[in-house]
Amino acid sequence: MGGSGGYIRLVSQSENSGAGIGAACAGSPNHLCSSTHRNGLIAVVRHQTMKRKTDSENGSAKRNHVDKPAEYTSSEIKEFFNQKLWDEKFQSQLESQVSSSQPYRWGTITDLMDPQLLKNVRNEVLSEIAFTKKETDIYKVFQSGDLANLSGLNWDDLSRLPSLYKLRAAIYSEEFRDMISGVTKCGKLSGLKTDMSINTYNKGCHLLTHDDVIGSRRLSFILYLPEPGKKWKPSYGGALRLFPAVVPNVPHTDYSAKLVPQFNQIAFFTVQPGLSFHDVEEVREDRQRLSIQGWFHIPQPGEPGYVKGEQEATEARSTLQQLQSKELQEYDFPKPVRNDFSPLEVETLLEKKTLSADETEYLSKFLNVEYLKPGNLERLQTTFLDESIVELTNIFNAEYAKVLHRSLRHTELETDTPQTSKDIQFPWKCAVPPHKQRYMYIDGTSTLDMSEKGVKFANAIGPSEAPNFSVTSQAHQLSDTDRKLCEISSFIKSRAFRKWLVQVTGLVPTSDQVLARRFRPGHDFILATTTEKDLARENELNLLLEATFNLTPTAANSKTWASGEFGGYELCMHNDDEQDEDDPAIYRGGNDDSSVLYTGQCQWNTLCLMLRDPTVLKFVKYVSVNAKGSRWDISCQWNVQGEEEAEEEN
Amino acid sequence: MGGSGGYIRLVSQSENSGAGIGAACAGSPNHLCSSTHRNGLIAVVRHQTMKRKTDSENGSAKRNHVDKPAEYTSSEIKEFFNQKLWDEKFQSQLESQVSSSQPYRWGTITDLMDPQLLKNVRNEVLSEIAFTKKETDIYKVFQSGDLANLSGLNWDDLSRLPSLYKLRAAIYSEEFRDMISGVTKCGKLSGLKTDMSINTYNKGCHLLTHDDVIGSRRLSFILYLPEPGKKWKPSYGGALRLFPAVVPNVPHTDYSAKLVPQFNQIAFFTVQPGLSFHDVEEVREDRQRLSIQGWFHIPQPGEPGYVKGEQEATEARSTLQQLQSKELQEYDFPKPVRNDFSPLEVETLLEKKTLSADETEYLSKFLNVEYLKPGNLERLQTTFLDESIVELTNIFNAEYAKVLHRSLRHTELETDTPQTSKDIQFPWKCAVPPHKQRYMYIDGTSTLDMSEKGVKFANAIGPSEAPNFSVTSQAHQLSDTDRKLCEISSFIKSRAFRKWLVQVTGLVPTSDQVLARRFRPGHDFILATTTEKDLARENELNLLLEATFNLTPTAANSKTWASGEFGGYELCMHNDDEQDEDDPAIYRGGNDDSSVLYTGQCQWNTLCLMLRDPTVLKFVKYVSVNAKGSRWDISCQWNVQGEEEAEEEN
Repeated sequence: MGGSGGYIRLVSQSENSGAGIGAACAGSPNHLCSSTHRNGLIAVVRHQTMKRKTDSENGSAKRNHVDKPAEYTSSEIKEFFNQKLWDEKFQSQLESQVSSSQPYRWGTITDLMDPQLLKNVRNEVLSEIAFTKKETDIYKVFQSGDLANLSGLNWDDLSRLPSLYKLRAAIYSEEFRDMISGVTKCGKLSGLKTDMSINTYNKGCHLLTHDDVIGSRRLSFILYLPEPGKKWKPSYGGALRLFPAVVPNVPHTDYSAKLVPQFNQIAFFTVQPGLSFHDVEEVREDRQRLSIQGWFHIPQPGEPGYVKGEQEATEARSTLQQLQSKELQEYDFPKPVRNDFSPLEVETLLEKKTLSADETEYLSKFLNVEYLKPGNLERLQTTFLDESIVELTNIFNAEYAKVLHRSLRHTELETDTPQTSKDIQFPWKCAVPPHKQRYMYIDGTSTLDMSEKGVKFANAIGPSEAPNFSVTSQAHQLSDTDRKLCEISSFIKSRAFRKWLVQVTGLVPTSDQVLARRFRPGHDFILATTTEKDLARENELNLLLEATFNLTPTAANSKTWASGEFGGYELCMHNDDEQDEDDPAIYRGGNDDSSVLYTGQCQWNTLCLMLRDPTVLKFVKYVSVNAKGSRWDISCQWNVQGEEEAEEEN
Repeated sequence: MGGSGGYIRLVSQSENSGAGIGAACAGSPNHLCSSTHRNGLIAVVRHQTMKRKTDSENGSAKRNHVDKPAEYTSSEIKEFFNQKLWDEKFQSQLESQVSSSQPYRWGTITDLMDPQLLKNVRNEVLSEIAFTKKETDIYKVFQSGDLANLSGLNWDDLSRLPSLYKLRAAIYSEEFRDMISGVTKCGKLSGLKTDMSINTYNKGCHLLTHDDVIGSRRLSFILYLPEPGKKWKPSYGGALRLFPAVVPNVPHTDYSAKLVPQFNQIAFFTVQPGLSFHDVEEVREDRQRLSIQGWFHIPQPGEPGYVKGEQEATEARSTLQQLQSKELQEYDFPKPVRNDFSPLEVETLLEKKTLSADETEYLSKFLNVEYLKPGNLERLQTTFLDESIVELTNIFNAEYAKVLHRSLRHTELETDTPQTSKDIQFPWKCAVPPHKQRYMYIDGTSTLDMSEKGVKFANAIGPSEAPNFSVTSQAHQLSDTDRKLCEISSFIKSRAFRKWLVQVTGLVPTSDQVLARRFRPGHDFILATTTEKDLARENELNLLLEATFNLTPTAANSKTWASGEFGGYELCMHNDDEQDEDDPAIYRGGNDDSSVLYTGQCQWNTLCLMLRDPTVLKFVKYVSVNAKGSRWDISCQWNVQGEEEAEEEN
């Protein structure tokens, strides 16, 4: 999609001061780099297409002008459904179920349709429709095309999907709309603007937390069609999970209601901006969880209940806007805050002295000595300056790596992985909110209370805390792994490591953020985001130096994660969509992958250093519940002064 | 001496923007202030003279031109001493004692003199000499005048101190000098330049750590004259204690050798710049530890061993220079480093908004609600702007203060007070080096290794640590008191407290240092220091806002510390001695106390806020071993932006 090539412009002002994100191997005779080596570029493993389309393009639902609004008679329509629906008592019970529901107004009806009709639909779909696997930062799913155009299909097509045609007519019929509108109190629903899709969630498929708010949507529904006659067990996954809001626009990180879907069951909820957050739990087993999912929209011109201007007003409250809301920034943890180095430290780093014996001694307690040899450091810098990215395999020395690996595996195998945010204990915190990210992290500060009051306290009233991993590691009841991760984080904040960083990158860091992270199977991810647009302060480049210490112990066997099947990879894309420039959290690429700049699978003991432009989108893919372990890493960002700026200053 | 008045010029550029340090009571109808109220000034309790003279003024030793170098014959001189001194075997044993001594070359001789001569000296001194109590930041002692002029006294005077006259002649005789020079290998000693004084260390007297290096001194000696015939017990105190150097110029905080002095015993050591650190332990009981103390200087012109230019070279290595040495700065802990607030936080504080309900709620968990009432805040600010100092009694609310008091008293009564630096455990550290300061503190960072290697690591190689009291309070094995002090320190670093500070002072803080401190009886003090000269960064005033939360639990009874007898008070002086402007750690005032600006005795639950000029000297007086408990406080410093600067910025 447009853009001038797949690589990042680094320093747009300067023709020769940078290239783009690539990956290169310095000192390859030393075998320090990974083996996927080609033309001096390594480890840029382009992954399968990773574009996220928003669930439906804004206003993309087709306005389906049905020639004969009553193609079926009212009694025919009613016959398509379970007859209990038309019983007043049933409707009244359903109404009270919806009105007392939590965490927001939703409801479900079992045995919704005539079962034979739905079995026919299922057979038609499975035999006639081609599904395409789609995967982005927010979902992995097999999707059919939009079904709204079914009536526009030619006879052949119609004849091959007659039951589905009936189903669609039934769902969008006045009878069903009136019933569902009545029990949900959501207001009038359009019969003209239909908006459905058929999805199959197979093993590994999932859809992360979102609120469905786009355009003129008024009511969401999902009609489930797993294998009829067999109970869909909770252990299969694929549940619909609803998230309460901490405050409007901010979902809680843990769901509070969960629906395990059965054949012929429908779930529905009113689309409420900033409230109706839900996700689809990953399907854990090799089973097909087919569903027909769609929206009722607000009435269109000419329909009963049409209100002029209502559509525009509804559309204005879009997810895009919410993602930039004040609430989201306040409830965004960890915050993208880098702590400034002291002026004295920056001055020392600007001298760009080679490493002293004492510094080398300290660094060698952690790092592979190959990365401390002046010749190798020079080669690494040359590569980094050319490519803006470099991967250093075996970054920690064998002894340190061995102890670290043993500790991480012990934690994974012998201790319970926290399953809810309440299970996450100091020094760990849970990254929130879940429509943007969820993962465990250590940031070297004290525990947060994620209630509305707690967040206000942390943001504006209480102690202003600076990260201190050294003190954190002295806290009570820390595990060996916790202490090791704090130790490495402290090491990264050492003067010696910063000097080493100057040697490798040629850049002088001036501030940092260091986070030890754990992405748990079945829980964790970061959706695509850019950095803030204006990174440069005085004398600084408008770029971030970023490092990921990849410390996933299960990746010591290189095959475990290589396929990408279990997610957990870190992916960078060029964000060339002008219209989205103001939106840091959503991208909409094309269907090609020309804008993927870098994919880093889970790795063991590998450091990836990159220089990131503010336009680059980065995400960490949701880790499958079936992954062999968590993705572990330490993620770092630094503001930097460059060569030119430093020289100007001197 | 001199200077334009006893008060600090606050903002020298601006005529009306400040006054000086005084103490004032705002809102006195609320009885929030202490009771020593006079003319709107309270609690400025001027203490007894607190000038420190350096132990001898540079080059002040008199050149005593003895008309008859041999007033006594050699055999007469020898008769004044114990005859063992002239025995070659004794001298050889003494020589090997000195050469193998630790922590530096020193020695001692028991029964030095003819005992009757020394008893006569003692009787003369006690009957004829007037002692003056002298107290500064570094000592409390009763001193006689310099005795070097004795031979110049008229007959009456000589006749009244004949034994002392003999003693002086004996000490500076060629015979004794040759002997002592021989066993110490210190080089030739002057017989012309004599330099002695008589001191009485009574109960409470002490002399803190120093290296005696001033001018042309070559050998220090102390001849002890406590009551003859009675053993001076270790429990009486008053021992000579010698400190090893961590590196040259930096004494270890704990002594490694200790001499309990007996009548007619002499101790001596070569004056070695940066090495010969020693102190005089406080005398614990009501006993008189009389001593004659002095120096042998390098040979003067005309004397054997005179080397042209040696005196100047020796003088150049003075204590004053050492105190500013690189080593001292590196080994200075805690370092005078204030951590910058985020630009966003400074921006918020510059708005100078009144306290919100949420902020007030949080503040009231700690503070006395009287100090949160807008009217009182206004009055406090008016006072502070007028006087540059304000004391807030009962700063914490009754409930919080009660719990805190109970916890502190429990710690004092039920747990062992650390006696050496090794006894001091996380989260506490020991302030060093001891020729500048010694006290326990919590700074919210991890433990320091005070070895040469450890200090280099902390300063230049290892993790760069920012204070975090919230995390510190979560460390293992913290006492309730430790946690409370961390809690208050965190509170002081809260956004709400900073906003409150703006309300009280009218100033906007931009960086802070917060230290919880404990000054233990018999151990702790801070010698007088100024701040760095240039405090102001962009938009800032060249002043520090300082706060002391006085939290000494034994001061809840106001009489306990009021006399100043037990030390522990914080004292500010105007440093008007131009010649010392480059020296941050030594002051030499006159004998009057005209330059004392503020004395704050140990108090309970009182906050003192002051605006400090870079010329102001501040110290915390050594806490007597007989004090009823430790001085406890939390000490804070902030860089500040003032009203004018803030307005310019807007």
